[in-house]
Amino acid sequence: MTTPSLELRRSLPRNGRLAALIVLTTLLAGCGQRIEGESAVSPGPLDRVMAAAAADTYTYALLSELCDTVGERLAGSEGMKRAVAWSRAAMIEAGCDSVWTEPVTVPHWTRGREWARCLGPVAFDLEMCGLGLSVGTGPEGIEGEVLAVRDFEELEARADEAAGRIVLFDPPWEGYGKTVQYRVNGASRAAAHGAVACLIRSVTDHSLGAPHTGVMRYAEDVPRIPAAALTVEDAARLSSMCRRGMRPRVKLSMEAELHGETTCYNVIGDIRGTELPEEIVLVSGHLDSWDLGPNAHDDGAGCALALGSAALLLKHDMRPRRTIRIVHFTSEEFGGHGGRAYLEAHRHELDHHVLAIESDSGAFAPRGFSVQADSTVVAAIADLTAPLARLAPDRWQVEPGGSGVDIGPIVRAGVPGVGHRVEHELYFSYHHSRADSFDKIDRGDLALNVAAIAGLVLAVADDPVTLRPHAAPGGE
Amino acid sequence: MTTPSLELRRSLPRNGRLAALIVLTTLLAGCGQRIEGESAVSPGPLDRVMAAAAADTYTYALLSELCDTVGERLAGSEGMKRAVAWSRAAMIEAGCDSVWTEPVTVPHWTRGREWARCLGPVAFDLEMCGLGLSVGTGPEGIEGEVLAVRDFEELEARADEAAGRIVLFDPPWEGYGKTVQYRVNGASRAAAHGAVACLIRSVTDHSLGAPHTGVMRYAEDVPRIPAAALTVEDAARLSSMCRRGMRPRVKLSMEAELHGETTCYNVIGDIRGTELPEEIVLVSGHLDSWDLGPNAHDDGAGCALALGSAALLLKHDMRPRRTIRIVHFTSEEFGGHGGRAYLEAHRHELDHHVLAIESDSGAFAPRGFSVQADSTVVAAIADLTAPLARLAPDRWQVEPGGSGVDIGPIVRAGVPGVGHRVEHELYFSYHHSRADSFDKIDRGDLALNVAAIAGLVLAVADDPVTLRPHAAPGGE
Repeated sequence: MTTPSLELRRSLPRNGRLAALIVLTTLLAGCGQRIEGESAVSPGPLDRVMAAAAADTYTYALLSELCDTVGERLAGSEGMKRAVAWSRAAMIEAGCDSVWTEPVTVPHWTRGREWARCLGPVAFDLEMCGLGLSVGTGPEGIEGEVLAVRDFEELEARADEAAGRIVLFDPPWEGYGKTVQYRVNGASRAAAHGAVACLIRSVTDHSLGAPHTGVMRYAEDVPRIPAAALTVEDAARLSSMCRRGMRPRVKLSMEAELHGETTCYNVIGDIRGTELPEEIVLVSGHLDSWDLGPNAHDDGAGCALALGSAALLLKHDMRPRRTIRIVHFTSEEFGGHGGRAYLEAHRHELDHHVLAIESDSGAFAPRGFSVQADSTVVAAIADLTAPLARLAPDRWQVEPGGSGVDIGPIVRAGVPGVGHRVEHELYFSYHHSRADSFDKIDRGDLALNVAAIAGLVLAVADDPVTLRPHAAPGGE
Repeated sequence: MTTPSLELRRSLPRNGRLAALIVLTTLLAGCGQRIEGESAVSPGPLDRVMAAAAADTYTYALLSELCDTVGERLAGSEGMKRAVAWSRAAMIEAGCDSVWTEPVTVPHWTRGREWARCLGPVAFDLEMCGLGLSVGTGPEGIEGEVLAVRDFEELEARADEAAGRIVLFDPPWEGYGKTVQYRVNGASRAAAHGAVACLIRSVTDHSLGAPHTGVMRYAEDVPRIPAAALTVEDAARLSSMCRRGMRPRVKLSMEAELHGETTCYNVIGDIRGTELPEEIVLVSGHLDSWDLGPNAHDDGAGCALALGSAALLLKHDMRPRRTIRIVHFTSEEFGGHGGRAYLEAHRHELDHHVLAIESDSGAFAPRGFSVQADSTVVAAIADLTAPLARLAPDRWQVEPGGSGVDIGPIVRAGVPGVGHRVEHELYFSYHHSRADSFDKIDRGDLALNVAAIAGLVLAVADDPVTLRPHAAPGGE
């Protein structure tokens, strides 16, 4: 019944890795000068990028500004309007040659006030957050006895106990992909057996008392019941009370409401290429976020890295031969509306997209790239970016894999995609919770990521050979 | 401005240490039989204790029951009444020969509802909790611009900016003893310069989005202003906004109220000694807790360990020569009222107290004992408990140091005191927050602590020589 206790320890001293990078790149810059001209594919440019990133403060300041002056930015909200205005202004200030927005139809969902309480036999407040796109409870709230189950299998086995009750899914963490199924589908699975509301254990591997939200979906053929996440702690407590036969009763109150649809925007900035301006290297993050905190890692970091990396190249006179397109997508969290809208709006020019890059795994220390394309492209990217392996000695990998939710539609339509890979140990501790705040950003790790992404962008956008010239887009 | 990011990693596989203990003690039990009779001070008894603890489930079940069926137990609250009833019943069921309660006058403070919000220029809810014994804000709440300072020094330097404002102390973590000063004294230091309310960064070294409460105190000569803790995240965010010149305004609403005093109880159980029943080995924890969670580590664990360790000896026919007195103190959190009341009620028999033991550092892996007594007693305890060092190879220490808040009064009056020492790396991550819940208890670590405390109790209570026979109590 107990979950493993955590052991938290401090990582490297702050900026320890940054200091290491500065030393590394200074040495490399010296080497680069000595071996200059030795080869047409000299490591020089990526060494310059790494050296510049080590001294860069722009991306860190950009992310801090986003967290402080924009904050929460749920698609369709006032915060998202602030975010779009901020993004446009930042792209212009960074030196993009053209900056524009493209409309995206997104769900208009509001959280409203919400609370939950265990009414007895021992009464205590439950720490909770409604799940994204959940219906509310109505002003009277919903009250019921808790049926705590470990998983869908136990729910099916105890289906005749579910009617009129609040079903709590308290599954162990088995990785995000598996555990998130309870968040996404739990409500409809419980409603199918007559449950009046659904609670889940927050989808996280480590908890210190805060709940984690995220999107859920309703099946077509069952009643839509409210769904909320409890903290890991409260879920475990209610489960234990149930096993003890205490029959806890819970009251849930949520003002959550889906108001239909509204218009939101992708923000796009182009830095025109010097020789092949019609060929595009797209680099992106998603600007929308959940509404419980400033969401520094998910995905403030991706937006800051996309723009900051491009800005680094401009600032250091490394404007490449091809166009760099920075995209700040919207409505990733509600289900990828921005990415699909981009595909529709740019279907006619997909064959000009040489590469699409997305950073949406946080700003932890970089570990390489995951390439969603055929093996020749994987090999080409590995080759072009080989010097970047110094950013993560012994751990750097460029390998086939997924790219990103937002670039997914154009990647499935034939554009080679790259996902930015980082150390993921802490990601789900912060993910979709109040803990995803700017104080969790390590300045040194962020600088390493600027180096990684700027290096990738430059390598591909400056390469004499186009990765995928005029390839016919496949079906989506 | 950034704080170091955390690295969380799983500790040993669950019950890994317990499995190791079982192997160890099985081997030891075999050895003990072979060398039986070799020495009068044979290691046999403590090996038996360790073997029994490895197989024990009682203490774990006891702590689970406390967390589930009692829950939050603020001194003077309904929860504390449940706790006292639970403790009495548990002591009787465990086989104590006599069980009684002793009245303690404690503050009667209630939290009520509370919330805080940053009203702008970027609006967001603040995650907060009022500090223990704080006054409330009145029904209208308190609104003001935030003055964020790093420490008392910065407050003094900017004293002329404090009037009418909400002062936020956002100090870096420099260990509990130093950092807790802002929680205890921050409000009066701010009020001295005209502040209308006080916020502090939660006193913790690691945060994932939950606030940490704890007691505060008012100075006599300044207005009593409300005081609350923000999460580390929100404190950092407001500080950053202030540094950016955004001048955030905060509204604080707290129904907190001090209703004067009320009567609460220490719960005491004696297990009569076989040969020297008038000599007492006291083993204790504090039964009261903060009100944000079940407080498994602070100090549910101490109460469970005190009773569970004594019960282990009884169950395995190891009732010692001296009396074991289990004490579940009350009102440690509000300032140690239970400990002072015990001194007053037992001043006449202090010289019968051979040793006082307190466990109030959580149920993490044991690391030895801290002895508050003269050096001969330190040496005697180290000698008597030497076999227990196997519980923490290479890390076990018995050394001079503090003992515990609750036993402090009788220790200062001359009773030798022992504090139970454990790994403290995670303690302040959970401390006084919702994260201090039963799911954070490691079954294996708890069993090791049962072995440590039961071993200490048995060694001293069965020792042919009394540690401190009829010593005259000194001044308090």
